[in-house]
Amino acid sequence: MGAVKTKRMPRAVREQQMLDAAVRTFGQRGYMAASMDEIAELAGVSKPLVYLYLNSKEDLFTACIRREATALVAAVRAGARPGLPADRQLWSGLTAFFTHTARHPDGWAVLHLQARTHGAVFAAEVAAMRAEVVEFVTRLILDAARDAHRDPDLPEREVAGLAEALVGAAESLADWANATPGVTVRHSAATLMNFAWAGLGDLMAGRRWTPPDDEPDPEAARSGLTSPVG
Amino acid sequence: MGAVKTKRMPRAVREQQMLDAAVRTFGQRGYMAASMDEIAELAGVSKPLVYLYLNSKEDLFTACIRREATALVAAVRAGARPGLPADRQLWSGLTAFFTHTARHPDGWAVLHLQARTHGAVFAAEVAAMRAEVVEFVTRLILDAARDAHRDPDLPEREVAGLAEALVGAAESLADWANATPGVTVRHSAATLMNFAWAGLGDLMAGRRWTPPDDEPDPEAARSGLTSPVG
Repeated sequence: MGAVKTKRMPRAVREQQMLDAAVRTFGQRGYMAASMDEIAELAGVSKPLVYLYLNSKEDLFTACIRREATALVAAVRAGARPGLPADRQLWSGLTAFFTHTARHPDGWAVLHLQARTHGAVFAAEVAAMRAEVVEFVTRLILDAARDAHRDPDLPEREVAGLAEALVGAAESLADWANATPGVTVRHSAATLMNFAWAGLGDLMAGRRWTPPDDEPDPEAARSGLTSPVG
Repeated sequence: MGAVKTKRMPRAVREQQMLDAAVRTFGQRGYMAASMDEIAELAGVSKPLVYLYLNSKEDLFTACIRREATALVAAVRAGARPGLPADRQLWSGLTAFFTHTARHPDGWAVLHLQARTHGAVFAAEVAAMRAEVVEFVTRLILDAARDAHRDPDLPEREVAGLAEALVGAAESLADWANATPGVTVRHSAATLMNFAWAGLGDLMAGRRWTPPDDEPDPEAARSGLTSPVG
């Protein structure tokens, strides 16, 4: 033991352990109530080491926001499959989003509740990520409209509004899904597809968008629930 | 002048003036940066009087949140017209919502940005209002489904999800509309109607929901813009 051996431990690994513990603590207890003692204990390190690596509670929280934001954006980007028809692209993007938020409920709570509830600096971190997602969704909708050769029917400003609406709806549903027992990823994604793709008008008329059957429900195995949709 | 005359001034009127000034200051400067000096000056009263009536900056902010939340919920309720077909009910409810948020941008900023950014106590105040709106929208969708005699096609859990999606989309669009010059109420409401009622699928196929022509655009006179939709 001693200082030399401690310093030779891979710092990156230790930092990730601290961030794992911090995301869990911030997500479950809230930013204010979370203590550095608790985070250090959960990470299996001393409190001074957390301060040495991450500097302060504020900086630790900022590091959590950045890591979770990067992971969420990457998951959504990886979920979109450019070769597919527009509705299938949207379905796979939404499924990726709800899978990520369901698997990382503490990370989602950090991003969507905690970061926006404890000061403008943290809120700005999340706003930057959100702008990136809106930009990405705007591009998806524009591409879909272009594929349909109907660009003139969807002016750019309307597409920007549609992307804002879609992202806002997805955020709201992710909060709801994580707070409501028994709601599967497939359920959340199908609800939003029916809302966003088919529209309430089609739903009222008994016409619904049907999720493809050729892929497993990523949550089915975990929750043991059959999907209430599709 | 003197204490007696001051005390006989209607307290309710004074309080509303203080709340007007506070909503404007909190909405534009943010909760942290807003000073009680500034609020008192804008309200045309002394700072001690603000403290006498509203007790503290925290209590003043809470009073602002409650007043703005009550006004927004009342505006949305007043906008829904139970006798109309479902799409017209939704259209009039959305128009009422976007009209209110456009006319009270500082109130909306207090509710949707400031209150959720400065602590769990304030966030809980807004969460209560939001739950009321979601409940109201859930009821609207259920009634519409019942009118269409298609209840079995829309299980209650899916309706709850649709209401969350719709409210999240409307919140997101209201932020965007208030931050984007030239976006009219009719534009925001029509974008969300097309998204929520017709769905992206219909939009891609060139089928859009058309706003009724028999009502004036509540923002047209103010903004001088022609509506980019409908």
